[in-house]
Amino acid sequence: MTENTTDPSRIVLLGLGDMGTAFARAWLAAGHPLTVWNRTASRAEPLAAEGADVAADPASAVAAGRLVVTCLFDDASVGSVLEGVDLAGRDLVDITTGTPGEARARAEWAAARGARFVSGGIMAVPPMVGALETGAYTFYSGSEEAFAEHREALSVPTGARFQGGDPGLAALLDVALLSAMNGMFGGLTHAFALARRSGVPPKEAAALLEGWVGAMLSDAAGGFAERLESGDLTTGVVSNLAMQSRGLDTLLRTAREAGVSTELLRPYADLMERHVADGGGDQDGAGLVDRLLEDPA
Amino acid sequence: MTENTTDPSRIVLLGLGDMGTAFARAWLAAGHPLTVWNRTASRAEPLAAEGADVAADPASAVAAGRLVVTCLFDDASVGSVLEGVDLAGRDLVDITTGTPGEARARAEWAAARGARFVSGGIMAVPPMVGALETGAYTFYSGSEEAFAEHREALSVPTGARFQGGDPGLAALLDVALLSAMNGMFGGLTHAFALARRSGVPPKEAAALLEGWVGAMLSDAAGGFAERLESGDLTTGVVSNLAMQSRGLDTLLRTAREAGVSTELLRPYADLMERHVADGGGDQDGAGLVDRLLEDPA
Ligand SMILES: NC(=O)c1ccc[n+]([C@@H]2O[C@H](COP(=O)([O-])OP(=O)(O)OC[C@H]3O[C@@H](n4cnc5c(N)ncnc54)[C@H](OP(=O)(O)O)[C@@H]3O)[C@@H](O)[C@H]2O)c1
Ligand SMILES: NC(=O)c1ccc[n+]([C@@H]2O[C@H](COP(=O)([O-])OP(=O)(O)OC[C@H]3O[C@@H](n4cnc5c(N)ncnc54)[C@H](OP(=O)(O)O)[C@@H]3O)[C@@H](O)[C@H]2O)c1
Repeated sequence: MTENTTDPSRIVLLGLGDMGTAFARAWLAAGHPLTVWNRTASRAEPLAAEGADVAADPASAVAAGRLVVTCLFDDASVGSVLEGVDLAGRDLVDITTGTPGEARARAEWAAARGARFVSGGIMAVPPMVGALETGAYTFYSGSEEAFAEHREALSVPTGARFQGGDPGLAALLDVALLSAMNGMFGGLTHAFALARRSGVPPKEAAALLEGWVGAMLSDAAGGFAERLESGDLTTGVVSNLAMQSRGLDTLLRTAREAGVSTELLRPYADLMERHVADGGGDQDGAGLVDRLLEDPA
Repeated sequence: MTENTTDPSRIVLLGLGDMGTAFARAWLAAGHPLTVWNRTASRAEPLAAEGADVAADPASAVAAGRLVVTCLFDDASVGSVLEGVDLAGRDLVDITTGTPGEARARAEWAAARGARFVSGGIMAVPPMVGALETGAYTFYSGSEEAFAEHREALSVPTGARFQGGDPGLAALLDVALLSAMNGMFGGLTHAFALARRSGVPPKEAAALLEGWVGAMLSDAAGGFAERLESGDLTTGVVSNLAMQSRGLDTLLRTAREAGVSTELLRPYADLMERHVADGGGDQDGAGLVDRLLEDPA
């Protein structure tokens, strides 16, 4: 298979799970020629009815176009699906979730097979795909030339943010945002548990939480960044860790009083307590960031 | 000291730390007659220059007015400052941070001394006090009559939200919101650590985090509340725990790859994993709330 037998505007998509199917539909709706393949063939049928060409196997799918998008379960499934497939002259855009290390290794693997490589980290759930008004976007990083060539197609399902040449960076940013989100989820979980113990209606709790946590998010993200960027961890601090650490004691005692597990709150309280004991009491939460790097668990 | 020797519009404030001083300044700026006392007398001097009357001890301060506000270090300091002071006919509004249990016990203690009691939980830092445009507010709960009588004065430093007759509820809501905020802070800390390991400028990380975590906060708070209120934990779920739990594995592996401690992320991942193992994989984070009540740690 050589490059000039392929259609340059055609998109090849391997993987039709919930996310792959959402990407496929967005491309079909925008009129892009699309070749799809999925391990379980039945998942391709509805897309065939909507205009997709269905390939019998990964190799013949890849033969049909220059832009090859993989949206599979994990990095290992990308390797196994593309095992033995001729990727020479292809641009492989892998939007399967993985670690930065996996993306970097996959980039080398692709280069060894003559393909340019871009890794993607999708900041959306399937219902947000194809609905640009939701603000959904995907981080991309890796080959800038390949991204530039396919920017238009890649900007159809979600917004496309190119983050530079390190193929691991898209995954890193994806994971960083999801990690922060999970911390916030843990906080909400604890707060809703306290509210339930005291008969506060969940919707009342939700409105209060959204207002308070949202306001504190803007203050903290901006303030932390300023202090991390300047390296001066005490200027601009409004509520320092010495005071916050005292406050956390009240939070932990309240949870115990209410019979709410402290398991989600304790690690941050412990980290803060260690930092205050080591003399960081006049800093705020920004001072804890490098502490996570100093003390890998 | 009897009630008719006191000025009904006068506010008595015990405690001139950062927060008490901010409340005092807001009342003085609004023209309220104010009597203050602080253990360390020098902290009252600037306020005297701004028009406050300074009392020599807590008893003579309390004698000067019907509304007595305490803003001290902790509940124990409230008890020790008011030890032996005649509170008959007074309305004690305690805005010192404490647990709901402490507030309920303090309410009984006040009732035994002939005072009405209101507990407050301040959702602000001192620079936000007296600046209503910041949206800062204080939860109040306890005696509805006392609150109604002093609503105007209490609405000067911050907005005033009365939450009902349970004197512990203001503290409960205060603690719930602060707990959620600390979970969010933990998430930000982890995310900034990942970003630093990869050379992402903190301000770029902050902008991405603010957008993503803010969007997910609204979705999650509202969605969790709907499911908790209906008791149907699977309807309306966009990304279920079975999938999120797989995702958390990628987040943990990424942290380990990057040499970032997983200590802030693990407890939520562990809780989720236990819940999925017990059959809750088709729920979302709302399903974890009652789990914190079932398994108090
Ligand atoms: N859904 C979301 O909310 C979301 C959000 C952001 C990112 N993502 C990421 O997007 C990727 C796809 O997610 P999804 O929601 O579409 O997952 P999914 O619905 O579980 O689909 C998984 C896909 O991978 C295929 N697959 C799994 N193992 C395979 C193997 N060994 N060989 C060949 N094919 C294999 C499945 O094929 P079969 O049909 O044959 O099983 C299916 O097409 C994942 O990396 C996920 O983390 C998803
Ligand atoms: N600052 C905030 O951001 C913030 C936010 C929300 C809620 N709060 C709450 O507001 C309350 C006051 O906070 P703050 O920031 O003003 O604290 P602060 O600056 O540390 O001041 C503490 C005050 O308590 C007094 N005090 C401490 N122990 C005492 C004792 N045994 N007897 C008599 N007085 C005693 C101190 O008197 P001396 O001057 O003599 O030491 C001082 O007036 C706390 O409960 C805090 O949790 C504060």
